[in-house]
Amino acid sequence: MEDGRMKAIEWRKDSLQLLDQRELPGKTVWLTVRTADEMADLIKKMAVRGAPLIGICAAYALALEARINAGLNHLKEKAETLKKTRPTAVNLMRAIDRMLKAAERANDLSQALQTEAEKIHDEDRAACARIGKYGAELLNRGPVLTHCNTGGLATGGDGTAYAILKEGCRQGKITEVFACEARPFLQGARLTAFELKEDKIPFRLITDSMAGHFLSTGGMQAVIVGADRIAANGDVANKIGTYALAVLAKENNIPFYAAAPASTFDPSLSTGGEIPIEERNEKEVLFLGGVRIAPEGVKASNPAFDVTPARYIKGIITENGILKGGQPLAATPSHC
Amino acid sequence: MEDGRMKAIEWRKDSLQLLDQRELPGKTVWLTVRTADEMADLIKKMAVRGAPLIGICAAYALALEARINAGLNHLKEKAETLKKTRPTAVNLMRAIDRMLKAAERANDLSQALQTEAEKIHDEDRAACARIGKYGAELLNRGPVLTHCNTGGLATGGDGTAYAILKEGCRQGKITEVFACEARPFLQGARLTAFELKEDKIPFRLITDSMAGHFLSTGGMQAVIVGADRIAANGDVANKIGTYALAVLAKENNIPFYAAAPASTFDPSLSTGGEIPIEERNEKEVLFLGGVRIAPEGVKASNPAFDVTPARYIKGIITENGILKGGQPLAATPSHC
Repeated sequence: MEDGRMKAIEWRKDSLQLLDQRELPGKTVWLTVRTADEMADLIKKMAVRGAPLIGICAAYALALEARINAGLNHLKEKAETLKKTRPTAVNLMRAIDRMLKAAERANDLSQALQTEAEKIHDEDRAACARIGKYGAELLNRGPVLTHCNTGGLATGGDGTAYAILKEGCRQGKITEVFACEARPFLQGARLTAFELKEDKIPFRLITDSMAGHFLSTGGMQAVIVGADRIAANGDVANKIGTYALAVLAKENNIPFYAAAPASTFDPSLSTGGEIPIEERNEKEVLFLGGVRIAPEGVKASNPAFDVTPARYIKGIITENGILKGGQPLAATPSHC
Repeated sequence: MEDGRMKAIEWRKDSLQLLDQRELPGKTVWLTVRTADEMADLIKKMAVRGAPLIGICAAYALALEARINAGLNHLKEKAETLKKTRPTAVNLMRAIDRMLKAAERANDLSQALQTEAEKIHDEDRAACARIGKYGAELLNRGPVLTHCNTGGLATGGDGTAYAILKEGCRQGKITEVFACEARPFLQGARLTAFELKEDKIPFRLITDSMAGHFLSTGGMQAVIVGADRIAANGDVANKIGTYALAVLAKENNIPFYAAAPASTFDPSLSTGGEIPIEERNEKEVLFLGGVRIAPEGVKASNPAFDVTPARYIKGIITENGILKGGQPLAATPSHC
């Protein structure tokens, strides 16, 4: 925490300091990253995660790599390595493409990449703040349910959905946050609970299996989640379990919102069915904290994301206003 | 396993041998139970669980207690202790009430209670077999999704929903079982996976958060779950997470069935809203295999069950045929 803000990375120009999120909440371990390969490995292993944040980290990794070898072909090769780490979140591809464009037009390539990475980081920080404000405008007063982690540990600022929780709480509009644990990787139990506790936001942790019960009985005012990629028609890929929350919210007449910066939109895909869904190692399901929870020899599936069709989503909260299915829902030009 | 059947208890007339389900699947530990107080403690601590099975265990516990003290008032007192162990599953109250009635009309009270407990056990074993047959008749061919544990570890026989999986598989109607892990207590990952593996039924383990994804994309032919109490209007209380599965099944036009013996019906309650929902210790959510998964000081909710309204349930599969909302859905007199 610094100035009331959770910090997942720290840029030191010759290195990126990275909080190892695999160790949270038990331990605070900072890693020093100096190359693109090191960063690719840490993204794959989920030492750092969160769609906007892995984009920022990949950008910084290319800036670091340019200090070692400022050849454009070398950087393109490292860009490919970074792009392959995780397939679903499009912010990663976006940030890398921006870095390559900056490299192509640069005179001082190393300086240009540092500037571009800092710009990507700054823009995300500003987007978070605006998402928080737009989102809070949609709230009345009551509890809100969220999924996975979308806060300072997933972005360059206060978060996407999390920024709305924080701002909504500051405005007295959120009485309690229901945080789903987000099995298998437990980003809710480990990371969101950690951020909510640090921010002194009233909350309770629930298992994903309890969400339906609380949506049907808990007087929930809204469900707000993040997003990893949004197709042209407004379908949203997000952490596995999101689709179920959207269906349950609709069934109980509770508005369901996704919050994401513009870098999460992928207009090249017409529907969510085209979004690649990462299948992770089954060990994340079969083991927990190093403890085997299922019998030896059992097979598990581990899709890390699912797709929520646009028809379940009341609004997509972005830094430029609130959209639905690619169409403006609420025009708020005073903020834009 | 014995004769191809999972065994959770063994009656030895002077004791009940009880498989400690808290230790599964890692260890096979048998406990010897000789008194009602011992049994009450083991039910509370979930060494034994499953709505039909805890009814059978409570019945045997009263038979054991009658060997120590055959006074009717003494037995009534122990019956109260047993009834208070877990509030949701009505099979427990049913079995205890039957035992007390048998005690009241008995000449040889100890012998009468032994006979009645064995009868309750035998009837449940027979009910499981019939549920398996009725349920399998509803299947075509394809995968089936189930929740929690409803097999030999939850009943006196082959199970409720699980008996249908077993029979459906034997008839070649089930290509694969999708087993939800059932957080927080992981009865799916620990117990159902154990039974499916022993029975050589093809299956995969999924987290509860993945169920929606597979129901919307997996070509599932049905969702089949057990039940802990069924109100007069057909509302079903079952393991937390069941309601979400029912809503997701409806949304995807997949038939949703609950399977339960007649002892699970509670016509004294007009709707599911009257069913008492057990709130268990938050440690079951906050810890996993002894490992803390959320930060210190975090509060969690832990309702062990939820209520699925009858409108989501295509049929309730019982030993007497298939019902919906208390009304016969399919009359199959040849079996009745």
